[in-house]
Amino acid sequence: MGDEANFDVIAIVGVGLIGGSLGMAARARGLTKRVIGIGRNEARLDRAKQLNAIDSYTLDRSQGVAEADLVVVCTPVRDIVPNIKAFAGSLKEGAIVTDVGSTKAEVVSGAEAVLGAGPHFVGGHPMAGSEASGVEAARPDLFEGAAYIITPTDRTNLSAMRKMLKFAKAIGARTIVMSPEEHDYATALVSHVPHVLAAAALSIANEAEEEHPGDIFSIAAGSFRDLTRVSGSPPALWRDICLSNSEAVAAALLRFEKELAAIREVIESGDCDAVENLFKRASELREMLIRSRE
Amino acid sequence: MGDEANFDVIAIVGVGLIGGSLGMAARARGLTKRVIGIGRNEARLDRAKQLNAIDSYTLDRSQGVAEADLVVVCTPVRDIVPNIKAFAGSLKEGAIVTDVGSTKAEVVSGAEAVLGAGPHFVGGHPMAGSEASGVEAARPDLFEGAAYIITPTDRTNLSAMRKMLKFAKAIGARTIVMSPEEHDYATALVSHVPHVLAAAALSIANEAEEEHPGDIFSIAAGSFRDLTRVSGSPPALWRDICLSNSEAVAAALLRFEKELAAIREVIESGDCDAVENLFKRASELREMLIRSRE
Repeated sequence: MGDEANFDVIAIVGVGLIGGSLGMAARARGLTKRVIGIGRNEARLDRAKQLNAIDSYTLDRSQGVAEADLVVVCTPVRDIVPNIKAFAGSLKEGAIVTDVGSTKAEVVSGAEAVLGAGPHFVGGHPMAGSEASGVEAARPDLFEGAAYIITPTDRTNLSAMRKMLKFAKAIGARTIVMSPEEHDYATALVSHVPHVLAAAALSIANEAEEEHPGDIFSIAAGSFRDLTRVSGSPPALWRDICLSNSEAVAAALLRFEKELAAIREVIESGDCDAVENLFKRASELREMLIRSRE
Repeated sequence: MGDEANFDVIAIVGVGLIGGSLGMAARARGLTKRVIGIGRNEARLDRAKQLNAIDSYTLDRSQGVAEADLVVVCTPVRDIVPNIKAFAGSLKEGAIVTDVGSTKAEVVSGAEAVLGAGPHFVGGHPMAGSEASGVEAARPDLFEGAAYIITPTDRTNLSAMRKMLKFAKAIGARTIVMSPEEHDYATALVSHVPHVLAAAALSIANEAEEEHPGDIFSIAAGSFRDLTRVSGSPPALWRDICLSNSEAVAAALLRFEKELAAIREVIESGDCDAVENLFKRASELREMLIRSRE
């Protein structure tokens, strides 16, 4: 099929929010002739079919992947490699296997190890929603404007990677290429570390609150509320981090501790120009951040 | 006059957003017979009078404070003690002097030193807006629902403190009492530290961005955007911190570095239950924070 975004048959393992939306997007944009849903719960697969996320479904992984040109594994992170291992022997020659896990180093090396030299594995991470919400929340435009990170390694087949990039663009995503390790550090930095900072800020403020019941939280201004907003999000993210991204999160936190110590030393030095420059730079970077989405 | 919220004559030194709003609030609520504005710029004082923030004005500090029962110093933090020193000899017997500076330990000890045993100094910090925006932005309801922190010391006259608390309540504020040092640590924690965290996060993300131009900022999710929102605020705050709150900010940052290191060790340990408990606790504290404003 060359380098187009099309795959005659796509198999989706785990038809929840992401898997269901991928099926809907591929079908709606004519990128495939058939989408096969694979799962363990027949009622949920039937619901996915009713919602036009898939054309057909099966509970049998080996049968489900046998005809597929692209297999997308959309299960929770810890189940990705075991699933690939289970269906690896049934894949068609030249089939591409990808995943949508939110951490990559462990998953990609695990997938490459179980697939060997035959089928082409390309790690991926569409940054849209969370697999927790189910197929009822799926929609064909979920990936429009979203970042879709593709994480090749030395072992990645370049033609397979190009096909995945075209596919991701064809469903409306902005594609980004980085190594699995770079991906894990970057997402630790922009997503996991902010959660840790929020938890730390709440814990320390609570110490002061215990000295002054009712006072500290009540004087917490907009900046503290912005900082801690993410602490309202579900704890499921932390299971994933704990299971597969703890190394990158720890590295990013250590980097952060060093940066805080450096800023603290500038503040302690009483060098007002240096302090002001530090925050002028932050203001410029914030402008860059805002412009990066325009 | 006993313990009422009333002051026959109020002098306001520095009639900007906070000073102007205090004048408007006191006049609108009938808490005073006359508000005298004191400043260095006649055109701006005239504008304050047109806006009903003050009844009259003078460029002469000594003359301005001579009849006042309450003198409120609303200048930038670094000018508060020099101003008090300049008019101290002209104060009426029993006059109360207060300020609205956003840091307190240095200001309060400086003010107590220059005033001596005669007039009654009561440090204060209404947490509403910023003095930078000028009298055009002043409004009589600026303090409604806002926290107004009163910062007594061993030397504070209790009757004067009670009058200030009643005054703050009478203009619609929620009053909070803490020592100047507690105030400075608490505001460092809930306001200055979040600014430092935002600057640190932007700086580290920018390192990664330089490796991947256009990619890191573009995958920055809502949590990173919430965390760094405060970096858009003006750098004036940082002059104040540098000039008078660096000690408390450094102490709060050091506490934060230790908390981050402790959380990092839990994440590195791979103890998933401990990690999950940590973030469950954060979620509970966030709930407490939200409820504290209801």
